[in-house]
Amino acid sequence: MHSEVVAKAERARQAAAVMAGISTNAKNKALRLIAAALKEKSDEIIKANAGDLKVFRESSGYSEALYDRLLLNKERIAAAAEGLLEIAALEDPVGEVAGMRLRPNGLQIGEVRVPLGVVGIIYEARPNVTVDAAGLTLKSGNAVILRGGSEAIRSNICLVGIIQEQLRVAGLPEAAVQLIEDTDRSAALTLMRLNGLVDLLIPRGGPALIKTVIENATVPVIQTGAGNCHLYVDEGADLEMAADIAINAKTQRPGVCNAIETMLVHEAVADQFLPPVMDRLIEAGVELRGCPHAVSYNPSVKPASEEDWATEYLDLILAVKVVADMDEAIEHINRYGTMHSEAIVTSDYARARSFLNRVDAAAVYVNASTRFTDGYEFGLGAEMGISTQKLHVRGPMGLKALTGLKYIIFGSGQIR
Amino acid sequence: MHSEVVAKAERARQAAAVMAGISTNAKNKALRLIAAALKEKSDEIIKANAGDLKVFRESSGYSEALYDRLLLNKERIAAAAEGLLEIAALEDPVGEVAGMRLRPNGLQIGEVRVPLGVVGIIYEARPNVTVDAAGLTLKSGNAVILRGGSEAIRSNICLVGIIQEQLRVAGLPEAAVQLIEDTDRSAALTLMRLNGLVDLLIPRGGPALIKTVIENATVPVIQTGAGNCHLYVDEGADLEMAADIAINAKTQRPGVCNAIETMLVHEAVADQFLPPVMDRLIEAGVELRGCPHAVSYNPSVKPASEEDWATEYLDLILAVKVVADMDEAIEHINRYGTMHSEAIVTSDYARARSFLNRVDAAAVYVNASTRFTDGYEFGLGAEMGISTQKLHVRGPMGLKALTGLKYIIFGSGQIR
Repeated sequence: MHSEVVAKAERARQAAAVMAGISTNAKNKALRLIAAALKEKSDEIIKANAGDLKVFRESSGYSEALYDRLLLNKERIAAAAEGLLEIAALEDPVGEVAGMRLRPNGLQIGEVRVPLGVVGIIYEARPNVTVDAAGLTLKSGNAVILRGGSEAIRSNICLVGIIQEQLRVAGLPEAAVQLIEDTDRSAALTLMRLNGLVDLLIPRGGPALIKTVIENATVPVIQTGAGNCHLYVDEGADLEMAADIAINAKTQRPGVCNAIETMLVHEAVADQFLPPVMDRLIEAGVELRGCPHAVSYNPSVKPASEEDWATEYLDLILAVKVVADMDEAIEHINRYGTMHSEAIVTSDYARARSFLNRVDAAAVYVNASTRFTDGYEFGLGAEMGISTQKLHVRGPMGLKALTGLKYIIFGSGQIR
Repeated sequence: MHSEVVAKAERARQAAAVMAGISTNAKNKALRLIAAALKEKSDEIIKANAGDLKVFRESSGYSEALYDRLLLNKERIAAAAEGLLEIAALEDPVGEVAGMRLRPNGLQIGEVRVPLGVVGIIYEARPNVTVDAAGLTLKSGNAVILRGGSEAIRSNICLVGIIQEQLRVAGLPEAAVQLIEDTDRSAALTLMRLNGLVDLLIPRGGPALIKTVIENATVPVIQTGAGNCHLYVDEGADLEMAADIAINAKTQRPGVCNAIETMLVHEAVADQFLPPVMDRLIEAGVELRGCPHAVSYNPSVKPASEEDWATEYLDLILAVKVVADMDEAIEHINRYGTMHSEAIVTSDYARARSFLNRVDAAAVYVNASTRFTDGYEFGLGAEMGISTQKLHVRGPMGLKALTGLKYIIFGSGQIR
């Protein structure tokens, strides 16, 4: 067991007990103080970040995309601070009582929404996650243990230092937000196995990170992020709408998890729909890979392999398959999909209902782009990621996902 | 990977897709058919069970208590069948739509309650769990993979055979209820690691079983059962009520998880409360272990060790501690408790509220016995066990605990 991690987790558990009883006003005040301090201390943060950037530029893992994720500047710090103010403006889910009922023996039983307790987050070299995660866990009354990537360690130490200083100013326990400073794998492994101290562990990052956490964690985990999403264009669909949704869901931001990776097209509309939409997609820079039927429409469409159906490209690549009917489409989705976001474009009432019922995903759409699977778009505010498992919560994880329901029972001496 | 387990899990996944769309009427019909068949085929079940009992009597693991758990007779089979009829009478949670709202862009977003999918259950030599678990998962629209203890294998094969026969008669997929027939550890280990095929794994049994599952599973798990529960008797409490609750919570059924294991008493009432209640407890056959202050009241009270505070006796043993105030009681509970059921007896309004807020457990009681933490007593009907983790569900796990919420989105061509 890694001693830094165990010691911080024990402090987090104590802080969580305090945080669970802090009023919404006090939590919002702390969020506003932190937001102001981040803006005020931008230069300090940028200087720490510059240290990370310098090391990263010279490292073997350098890539332009990762460098951009690691970079903090005045605008990004201001955006992170703004994010905290938005979290302060969200409704506090803690304390809501549901299902209060009177039992025949006079016991009054209800369920109250309470923080989960200690939340661990393992993430990669994105220092903005440090601020987001601290804000969401603070507002939901939890204590958080952050374990960011080694590339961002100087930025994270600086950010968490500023956050803890303001927690002190606000009179909240500074151990409500802690950073594991040792970026060695052994520290993360200990965090994954602190049953009794960690109530939830959320991995945020690429498939390798998520796989490591799933395989090694003994504490409860929420699996996030993988999005092999589909658009199914039904027989009799409004083909103009279908084309607009296809273009949007693939090209508006191809690198995110709610973009589509495969389009399924009913054979009855394939001749009419595919040639023009393929032209539009190719024009937008999309590489197409298709089943033999789809390939036949355009010489630039490459044959898709079995692997293509299972791949989350996160890039301007789209697999296209012509299907005999909706059953085949649903079978394909439930076989290759990652239970993230799935859409049908249809004009048929019964098939719309059937698709909604039968597709097993966090978010199932009729006649809209999958790109809406997002905390803000769903009206939840900021989010901790998109859950692709079924336990506890599916889809965008807002404040409520960081809470649970505990039974409270009012008696007058009842015994069994 | 164990081939029987993988093959059954794949069939379960297909069955789950069908089960999710089965009407409540059809599920209830199947439950009633199974109930009738169990009663009708009692002799067949008793004969299979006799085979298990014979082997168990001659085994090195023999104990009277375990033998009794393994035993099936006409009455117990009738009770299991009755349990299925009660499940049929429960409201079906599947299909409920919550939080339907219109977003500014015209998207209509709601959450629909759906089955979890494939539920795995690893349990010990209690063949009645086979029937209960099949009934609850069937009613909630899931497919279940049962992995019972080797001692009950003949009984379980017989029971699942009868259940599958009636699923066929009812026109439901027989793979909705499957038994892993290989009772080797390797089969259970495979079940714990079938990510993508198993949506939830529930261990039901003793601490060793639960520990094995927590440590080895990579699929989502719900931790159940451990109950180191406390009763705190506050200053100014109704001491007669407190005594009745103490006797009930300890002695009414000491072998269950919602019985108390430690009683905490405010020092202001210790002199008046403890001597008579200790006499009553001793009279009821309870062995007492106490802190030095508690020991001073009665020569038969043994000194409690550090280990006593952390032990779930599941027996007629009670640890007793005198505390300076409620803060000390809450600290003790949050340190040694297992987040199961905790109770205060008090007459004070503010302390009642504070105890409810600050004690971190699935069920927190004011002025009632902890023995009520139970699906039936809470009005949920039959249960799959008591969750002592915070993710997904806390406390008694009824039908709703076997479901989750999936987002459904109705659009009219919205894109981002």
